[in-house]
Amino acid sequence: MINFPKPTVEQFFHTFVITDFTVSEDEQRLVFSSNMNGKDNLWALDLPAMFPYLFAQHDQSIDFLQFDPHNRYLLTSYDQDGDENYQSYALPFTGGIAQPLTPSEPGDKFYFSHLSEDGERLYYNTSRGNPSFLNTHVYHLQDQTDQLIEKGDQAVTHLLTVSKDEQAFVYVRMFANTYATLHVKQGEEINYLTPDPEKVHFSFDPIFVDQKTIYFITNYEDEFNYLATYDLTTNTFKPVLKLDGESIETIKFNKEQNRLYLVTEKGVSDFLYAYDLSTGKHDRLQLPVDVLTKLHVAKSGTLYVLGRSATLPFNIFQSKDGLTWKTLTNNRVLGIDQEDMVEPEVVSYPSFDGLEIEALLFKAKPENDNGYTIFWPHGGPQAAEKKMFRAMFQAFLNYGYTIFAPNFRGSTGYGASFVKMVEQDWGEGPRLDNIAGLDWLIDQKITDPEHLFLVGGSYGGYMALLLHGRHPEYFKAVIDIFGPSDLFTFVESVPPHWKPIMERWLGDPIRDKERFIKDSPVTYLESMTKPMLVIQGAKDPRVVKDESDQIVAKLKDKGREIEYLVLEDEGHGFTKKENEIKVYRLMLDFLAKHQ
Amino acid sequence: MINFPKPTVEQFFHTFVITDFTVSEDEQRLVFSSNMNGKDNLWALDLPAMFPYLFAQHDQSIDFLQFDPHNRYLLTSYDQDGDENYQSYALPFTGGIAQPLTPSEPGDKFYFSHLSEDGERLYYNTSRGNPSFLNTHVYHLQDQTDQLIEKGDQAVTHLLTVSKDEQAFVYVRMFANTYATLHVKQGEEINYLTPDPEKVHFSFDPIFVDQKTIYFITNYEDEFNYLATYDLTTNTFKPVLKLDGESIETIKFNKEQNRLYLVTEKGVSDFLYAYDLSTGKHDRLQLPVDVLTKLHVAKSGTLYVLGRSATLPFNIFQSKDGLTWKTLTNNRVLGIDQEDMVEPEVVSYPSFDGLEIEALLFKAKPENDNGYTIFWPHGGPQAAEKKMFRAMFQAFLNYGYTIFAPNFRGSTGYGASFVKMVEQDWGEGPRLDNIAGLDWLIDQKITDPEHLFLVGGSYGGYMALLLHGRHPEYFKAVIDIFGPSDLFTFVESVPPHWKPIMERWLGDPIRDKERFIKDSPVTYLESMTKPMLVIQGAKDPRVVKDESDQIVAKLKDKGREIEYLVLEDEGHGFTKKENEIKVYRLMLDFLAKHQ
Repeated sequence: MINFPKPTVEQFFHTFVITDFTVSEDEQRLVFSSNMNGKDNLWALDLPAMFPYLFAQHDQSIDFLQFDPHNRYLLTSYDQDGDENYQSYALPFTGGIAQPLTPSEPGDKFYFSHLSEDGERLYYNTSRGNPSFLNTHVYHLQDQTDQLIEKGDQAVTHLLTVSKDEQAFVYVRMFANTYATLHVKQGEEINYLTPDPEKVHFSFDPIFVDQKTIYFITNYEDEFNYLATYDLTTNTFKPVLKLDGESIETIKFNKEQNRLYLVTEKGVSDFLYAYDLSTGKHDRLQLPVDVLTKLHVAKSGTLYVLGRSATLPFNIFQSKDGLTWKTLTNNRVLGIDQEDMVEPEVVSYPSFDGLEIEALLFKAKPENDNGYTIFWPHGGPQAAEKKMFRAMFQAFLNYGYTIFAPNFRGSTGYGASFVKMVEQDWGEGPRLDNIAGLDWLIDQKITDPEHLFLVGGSYGGYMALLLHGRHPEYFKAVIDIFGPSDLFTFVESVPPHWKPIMERWLGDPIRDKERFIKDSPVTYLESMTKPMLVIQGAKDPRVVKDESDQIVAKLKDKGREIEYLVLEDEGHGFTKKENEIKVYRLMLDFLAKHQ
Repeated sequence: MINFPKPTVEQFFHTFVITDFTVSEDEQRLVFSSNMNGKDNLWALDLPAMFPYLFAQHDQSIDFLQFDPHNRYLLTSYDQDGDENYQSYALPFTGGIAQPLTPSEPGDKFYFSHLSEDGERLYYNTSRGNPSFLNTHVYHLQDQTDQLIEKGDQAVTHLLTVSKDEQAFVYVRMFANTYATLHVKQGEEINYLTPDPEKVHFSFDPIFVDQKTIYFITNYEDEFNYLATYDLTTNTFKPVLKLDGESIETIKFNKEQNRLYLVTEKGVSDFLYAYDLSTGKHDRLQLPVDVLTKLHVAKSGTLYVLGRSATLPFNIFQSKDGLTWKTLTNNRVLGIDQEDMVEPEVVSYPSFDGLEIEALLFKAKPENDNGYTIFWPHGGPQAAEKKMFRAMFQAFLNYGYTIFAPNFRGSTGYGASFVKMVEQDWGEGPRLDNIAGLDWLIDQKITDPEHLFLVGGSYGGYMALLLHGRHPEYFKAVIDIFGPSDLFTFVESVPPHWKPIMERWLGDPIRDKERFIKDSPVTYLESMTKPMLVIQGAKDPRVVKDESDQIVAKLKDKGREIEYLVLEDEGHGFTKKENEIKVYRLMLDFLAKHQ
């Protein structure tokens, strides 16, 4: 009969992403953000019907979604072409044209905190008037008045939650990606939720389960995040639930069930638990995916999750019991079954100092295998490569590339000490972990320097540049996607509210001058001799375009083989389908050319 | 609370169209063509789940959809940017990349006829080797061989259906839009399905209900299309069912129920009937929409329809009984309820010669009313303006324009004599019907020449040009969308397979020279004094770009106020969302400017 050729990379280009969703309190309407019509837009499902309809066409990315409890409106925030300057908007409950909401000037950043139970007071954080530390405001939707209620100082400060009576306010102060303290403010009284805020730890996700009890997540005096409680009557902190080797990442409360739902992370996968506040018992539930983006718990106790697995793109699922799940969306790779894609093997290898490094090894299927391997240092660096669908990975695999993605020191999911190892050491330990990974690949005869490509984005782009400069002998060619090239310029160019954390995270350019020189890719221009492709979003506020411009210019001056793609309407990531396809095609062409 | 402004025209820009659909024989998969991601592409629903997934991304319009009865593939055809040179493709049953199917050269046109019951022989018509009359081929999917089985002559000839044993073939010969004969060919024997093929009539939609019985639609010796049968044993024709004042437009057969389903048309609405072959009884069923695009009857008897109403965009519906319908899709205007849109009034007025003309009057809601009226002569001309959603209309109405759309002589839905009245009379009778409509509007004090705009597309664009040239005193400004401007050049520029029908439809440029001059808009350049906007698709094969180019150039030479938009990647219609929005915006701006 008809001979259909085997699936091609083109098919992977047409998956879409779902970045966020929410559900109205009556569970009649679910709204999600997706680029299914080419750009990020809001779509709705009127449950139980599942054919989505366009809810708002704004062609921009959102940062949050919050329904009015009385079904009068939906709140969201949009940035502009990836600049991350999110501004608040309201939408009619039935969808329509987004209306600007809170006062703002271009360049201000809006961060949602809390909506009062009557839906009339919107608490939020803003860079307006305080770009480094942020301020907290309340906006009264009835009379459109806006009120400053707290000025951030010392560190980036976010109001995270508010008690039902709106008398107690829980703030986080972010000193670093690994150091954040929570405090509760009632009138002028301030109490820290952990006994000693000076001890470096990370606390987040506070929830009032009643007027006087806050549950939250912390790793105070521990390696892994655990569940803790703070009693406002007695002002006491108490650890509540620790899960061996797993880090709690999200908690959600259901009042009717008197339950908390916990999402945990362990290495490359996520897990879900129900924790009964009355009995103190916890049960592991089932998740329909390996990696969760969002958990929503409805009043009814119905669970909604957004997540993905290595061979399953972003989808939204619903469950009444946390055991069996119904898929509400149907996001799939065009014409390709999950079995036609590659599930990664989880491997581990010892690094230079004996530290065990976990990695994902995606082996190209024999019928596709082109004999080449892509080495992928992930971004963050305080993040991890997990079992999560990336159209780019599955397209590479379909083309025949094997992919190796190590969770080098600094990665999340392996305890607090491990995460901290990258702090003030961007270029030594993590780099050597990557080199150990490369050597392991060669030892295992998975690949060799004649068949290795290096591809990374963000911190992974930085690492790609650095590995290229210091170890060019391993690679055939290199792709850098918005990677910092010079730590001196990078540290100065980050957004204002990042600056307070830069010292602990990266270091001080004066004090640590020698290290900055040693760890900056530009130091090694001479040995960056392999063909390179650099990709950059012009609006990127995290790694500004100049980081790519300068290294491209310098290498061009030296006559090196370098291709450079700038996407004018993108930031730190590619959200527009057309741009994403352009990037994939260019990367595949570049790699093919340099085999 | 939050003040949301009233709906704006922007919201209408984001409705999408569904142009076609089909359902697999087991009713597990429904595939439809829609521009919901910006361009026409195929999407699928795996019933009963209703979240659509992308089935094929080809970014082009299709002409048909046919599932293999054994769920191995889907057949379709794509053109290129509206050029209507459709070519055949096959897609895997699960979707993917479209594979070219039957032999073809660029410029060939493929028309689907029939797929054998085993899904292995594809009967089709093609312009290949016979551009004026077409040939019929059979393509063997097993061994990819292709066979010419019939050469068209005398008139454009299409194989329409094939008996189960593939021994009897029913062909149509199209002499005009109002004259088409059916004949059945068995071996070398040919029989006409109507007693006298020389009598002008229109027969179509033949169906074998068994090896020896064909049901079909005809208006043989009648004003309205009725159901007829042809018995291959006795070679006899017999009228079967006439519906007073209604014209049967489509028939579908369900073997298990021994039933035909009939879609009829009466003026501005469509209706649905079940006709029982055993009892000869017919019952009127319910339709969920006023105007039907497609009816699909599954083996199980479940009905699927694609259709729209004035305030409801294209949607697909399912019904087990033809009385209650479930919406499978959820295509709606962004954030706007049906009540916020305008249902037309059906009005009628007498024309110059007493002929009654029916028209749709869409009155702008008082809160939107801007005091201006758009006069819309429809395209075709042998078509009709019906109660069907047009985003353009509802956007105009939201902006405050009232719209008047008369079904002048030549329109369908009012009997065969009425349709024929436009033949060889494009510019006199229909024009005077439009003038009578304009006078009626003024008499009714709905509008006056200071508040009237003229907008039309295709034949409606021709009529807009002609009315502008001969009656400029009625209008403030005129929009012509791909309208023929010169009948002499137009008659020469139509596609080859249109040429055989041009004489009866429009006339002969030599014999009818005087009339062609009188009825060509270019004859009246001197009096085309009002501001004009002309819109044209560069790939339009029906009304070629030169028809717009020449009138624009001539009017520019005379210093007239004329705007011209050419869409490079469109044909006779605007299928790409981006283009459609550009056209809407330009039209609204043009009209606003000339109020």
